[in-house]
Amino acid sequence: MARKIDILTLFPEMFQVFNHSIIGKAREKGIVEINAVNIRDYTKNKHKKVDDYPYGGGAGMVMSAQPIVDCVKAVKQNNRGKVIFLGPRGKTFNQDMAKEFAEENELIFICGHYEGIDERTYKYIDMEISLGDFVLTGGEMACIPIIDSICRIIPGVLSSSESYTEESFYNGLLEYPQYTRPEYFEDIKVPEILTSGHHENIRKWRRLQSLLITKRRRPDLFNKFELSDEDKKLLRNIKITMK
Amino acid sequence: MARKIDILTLFPEMFQVFNHSIIGKAREKGIVEINAVNIRDYTKNKHKKVDDYPYGGGAGMVMSAQPIVDCVKAVKQNNRGKVIFLGPRGKTFNQDMAKEFAEENELIFICGHYEGIDERTYKYIDMEISLGDFVLTGGEMACIPIIDSICRIIPGVLSSSESYTEESFYNGLLEYPQYTRPEYFEDIKVPEILTSGHHENIRKWRRLQSLLITKRRRPDLFNKFELSDEDKKLLRNIKITMK
Repeated sequence: MARKIDILTLFPEMFQVFNHSIIGKAREKGIVEINAVNIRDYTKNKHKKVDDYPYGGGAGMVMSAQPIVDCVKAVKQNNRGKVIFLGPRGKTFNQDMAKEFAEENELIFICGHYEGIDERTYKYIDMEISLGDFVLTGGEMACIPIIDSICRIIPGVLSSSESYTEESFYNGLLEYPQYTRPEYFEDIKVPEILTSGHHENIRKWRRLQSLLITKRRRPDLFNKFELSDEDKKLLRNIKITMK
Repeated sequence: MARKIDILTLFPEMFQVFNHSIIGKAREKGIVEINAVNIRDYTKNKHKKVDDYPYGGGAGMVMSAQPIVDCVKAVKQNNRGKVIFLGPRGKTFNQDMAKEFAEENELIFICGHYEGIDERTYKYIDMEISLGDFVLTGGEMACIPIIDSICRIIPGVLSSSESYTEESFYNGLLEYPQYTRPEYFEDIKVPEILTSGHHENIRKWRRLQSLLITKRRRPDLFNKFELSDEDKKLLRNIKITMK
């Protein structure tokens, strides 16, 4: 059964971004179904308006409850997934959330615009998610990477399961440095060890690089990370070498 | 002078997302210039390949240094901006960074794919940025919201300067609830105070709501926020009322 994702938006054309690359291929193969539904099609306003001035004054326009709520009700007839609103007051998205959502068969996303949505819409929303601590022109801009991040975990979307398990934030450490041909690029040679053919030494070297890069660049991640006995030994050895 | 942003990518079509909505209008008006440049056009490989197997083994493919570096060199002839690579080992993007980048006249972004880029490419990169602690299919997915977030701050992109100053993360607090017509939606009435016409009371009510929502949903932001004397008074009053 294909996973189904419906996106409620004022800019359905933006989601053509998922016609390409890895997610595009997964859609062609029928592994995921991604539909963008235009909220404007559900407004009862005769001028097709979907927003109005905020009660109490202030700059900008607020999205009305009616078109969003009627759009949610229509989409829910064929999608029983959680209703997720992309907004700045939500929990910050992370890889654990991506994994949880990737388990769901159906999901509904709502993209807000303008100065926010009428507070009474929240009755129909199960969860609010934020992409990070920055401001966007609309929920679409958050929805795009979030759907990408969820879909790539769904079995069959990536071509090899290994390319999933080795990546950053999956195991809590940043990636080790990668090198590919040629052996020399602008006079810089690939580290000797990677061309040695000694798999065990390569594995240890990569692990150590991951630990050192994470420690230097993201001490917050490093401090949360539970070091194995081997990790401790690798880090101890480097200290001795550096003395 | 228009701001110029060049994006180096294997999927230039994805950036058609910026043909629409607010950024689309800013481009039409000539306020920002956004170009997507195909890295593949710069490969010297006769089969037009841009990636190769990693030295030392492992799953996935690594993007070769040559096509990226030659693409950067070509783009730099008409763009003297910082070269920013979107990758998981970078600093996490936030609103302060958006504001800094919005001051620049020119910027160059590089979107990686596959299992990473050859480490020797970094010689040509000024800065690495990450969107957050989650894995994406490619740098494009991070580049889209980051460029959106930067561009919306550029003067002239948003229609009213007020709609910029009042938003979340700009002042460090989450947004207060918004309401628009009709007065009753599914039997829920707009809070009395917003229809009172008493501007000073509305301002105080909104400020208090922002403080309370931030405290409840994002204690990390709330603890960093410097409360004004008025804020303290508003929060003290609510405690007394609730006793």
